[in-house]
Amino acid sequence: MKILVLGADGYLGWPTCMHLASLGYDVVAVDNYLKRDIAKETSSAPLVEMPLLGKRSDLFHKATGHRIQVLEGDLRDYGFMSALLKHEDPDTIIHYAEQPSGPYSMMGHKEGALTLHNNLGTTYNLVMAALEHCPEVHIEKLGTMGEYGTPNTDIPEGWLDFEINGRKDRRLFPRQAGSFYHTTKILDTDLLWFWVRNRGIKVTDLMQGPVYGMHTEQTMLSDDLGTNFWYDDMFGTALNRFVVQAIHGMPLTVYGKGGQTRGYLDIRDTMQCITLAAENPALQGQLRIMNQFTEDFSANKLAEIVRDAADSIGIDVAIDHIENPRIEEEDHYYNATADAFAELGLKPHLLTQETVVGMLEYVKRHKGNIDASSIMPRVTWKDGKKD
Amino acid sequence: MKILVLGADGYLGWPTCMHLASLGYDVVAVDNYLKRDIAKETSSAPLVEMPLLGKRSDLFHKATGHRIQVLEGDLRDYGFMSALLKHEDPDTIIHYAEQPSGPYSMMGHKEGALTLHNNLGTTYNLVMAALEHCPEVHIEKLGTMGEYGTPNTDIPEGWLDFEINGRKDRRLFPRQAGSFYHTTKILDTDLLWFWVRNRGIKVTDLMQGPVYGMHTEQTMLSDDLGTNFWYDDMFGTALNRFVVQAIHGMPLTVYGKGGQTRGYLDIRDTMQCITLAAENPALQGQLRIMNQFTEDFSANKLAEIVRDAADSIGIDVAIDHIENPRIEEEDHYYNATADAFAELGLKPHLLTQETVVGMLEYVKRHKGNIDASSIMPRVTWKDGKKD
Repeated sequence: MKILVLGADGYLGWPTCMHLASLGYDVVAVDNYLKRDIAKETSSAPLVEMPLLGKRSDLFHKATGHRIQVLEGDLRDYGFMSALLKHEDPDTIIHYAEQPSGPYSMMGHKEGALTLHNNLGTTYNLVMAALEHCPEVHIEKLGTMGEYGTPNTDIPEGWLDFEINGRKDRRLFPRQAGSFYHTTKILDTDLLWFWVRNRGIKVTDLMQGPVYGMHTEQTMLSDDLGTNFWYDDMFGTALNRFVVQAIHGMPLTVYGKGGQTRGYLDIRDTMQCITLAAENPALQGQLRIMNQFTEDFSANKLAEIVRDAADSIGIDVAIDHIENPRIEEEDHYYNATADAFAELGLKPHLLTQETVVGMLEYVKRHKGNIDASSIMPRVTWKDGKKD
Repeated sequence: MKILVLGADGYLGWPTCMHLASLGYDVVAVDNYLKRDIAKETSSAPLVEMPLLGKRSDLFHKATGHRIQVLEGDLRDYGFMSALLKHEDPDTIIHYAEQPSGPYSMMGHKEGALTLHNNLGTTYNLVMAALEHCPEVHIEKLGTMGEYGTPNTDIPEGWLDFEINGRKDRRLFPRQAGSFYHTTKILDTDLLWFWVRNRGIKVTDLMQGPVYGMHTEQTMLSDDLGTNFWYDDMFGTALNRFVVQAIHGMPLTVYGKGGQTRGYLDIRDTMQCITLAAENPALQGQLRIMNQFTEDFSANKLAEIVRDAADSIGIDVAIDHIENPRIEEEDHYYNATADAFAELGLKPHLLTQETVVGMLEYVKRHKGNIDASSIMPRVTWKDGKKD
């Protein structure tokens, strides 16, 4: 199976490339380093900045004998996207190539426009190029659990059966997200669903929760084969940020009341899910929606888990509730379904103290790299960028 | 009340400008003539090509004493959009500035990309500029009944109350459209709803059905004050196209079985609805969705109405069923609500034989302009542009 990974330099992209290559798949890694450029705008940096893809690919080959082909190009350019799919003729495309930050998308006009046009434009180009050159390719699109928002009902796996005046139908669960970035993922889903219905493309849309952790089997092969581990207010997810705050000696900053509940997963389970979906593809003409998380936590609970793990290795940590920079429910019902991956045989790495301690130890080794000025919120949903 | 009309050169844009100016409102008409440019690509032309906005504004002033200010500019350029809203500080903005053709959006990559980036980009720029300069402005956005598609249930007015396992919530009715253009209107609604929830903008989203007719009180003031009346496969709506086919002596071409049912309205009722919504604005922080049509017809019924009207003035017309270029249900349940405008006092012009005869007579006067080569479908949903 030949697999293209679009957005291969990202937090999930590079580990995905190595994971799939290790399984013997023919992997092509594509990126234009847009995220690295954006990160400079906001003075954000990963805890340890990893080499570019070409170098990592060479190191990975030396370490494992597996090759990952690397291509640099802008997928917003249809000429590049079209030539890529024509030349590579992949069986599977993993589409991570989106601006992934909620706060960035809320900074102001320019950042929101980039998020809108990059994310929708890339998805649209991908669909058109697939229709032109490889209509049977399986597109695995990274969406987000954030598309559902926090309804007062259970969250199904993509679809809603509804009834009005005794007549029934089934459609996409009506989505309602909490940031403009998350809204672009809703638009992606709508866009993909149109082309699935109209031209019969083959799509798995992964509603993924926030991911934590930095290590997969392959990232541990060498220091330079790691993933870019983000912990700042723009690109860092909650648990990753808390771990860095604990090591830096800052209080863990919970936004508002901290009752915000989300479905989380270990980065090793992202690897499993991506692989399970690739090996068990959607059908031609199917939009298969899979909720991709393993267990849910409130922000308060996550902070307590990190505090307790830190305490177990002698690090004393406080928890602070700060004014919520976002507009979101802080105390809400949350019960999301995640049956599809369980049925495919996912074996979750649940969040243990051991896992968090491992993260704390990694961050501790790189403590000198922490830039504390990029951790506290610099963007509010109400006013955009704080000057 | 100062009203900006974005997309003022369109089929509805110019009549709207004149209608609102005649009521004494201060109207600013904005367009970049994108539709005229696109139409050249597809060799489409209105039955009678109207002068540019500046000339029509002068003629309108001479005829009525009312002034319509005209500005030419590209609303995809945020600099222009932002300066426009800052300088004009409008009370109401009527947003028609979108690529409006389903078939055009299905031609191929380039046309779909233009539709996506133009429509979403303009709506996004409008929201951002409103937040920056006039957050209390009432945005009247032209959506489409096509956003709903043809569910097996009644179609409510925008929102769905649903229940899962005994818990209830209310969200946007899950939309599912029949062309990529119509899908961009769904994306617009999702985008607007996000910014309404997050920043409290004031929006009316008009789910309009296909419009027919060419005359309002003001278009009849002079031949050069008419609207650009489109009848081709790209920009012509069903009834308008049938009327032109009848006069040209072609059979009326119904796509497929002809059971496709939609809610239609007279262009005079578009004028009424736009005005009613402007005079009774949405609330700050409200996304008000109003279904904008007056009665529904199947394609078969519309064709029969045109045939009978033509027959009444001695024109013999045949009806042909041709292979459907679109992918759509041809025999389906359809029952859409339209209470909101009725409650505001809309007095519908229902589709009478007199109305159709009036249309036939207008087209007959310009019969020599008909380009029959642009009437039959040149784009299929399955294969894009026919070469």
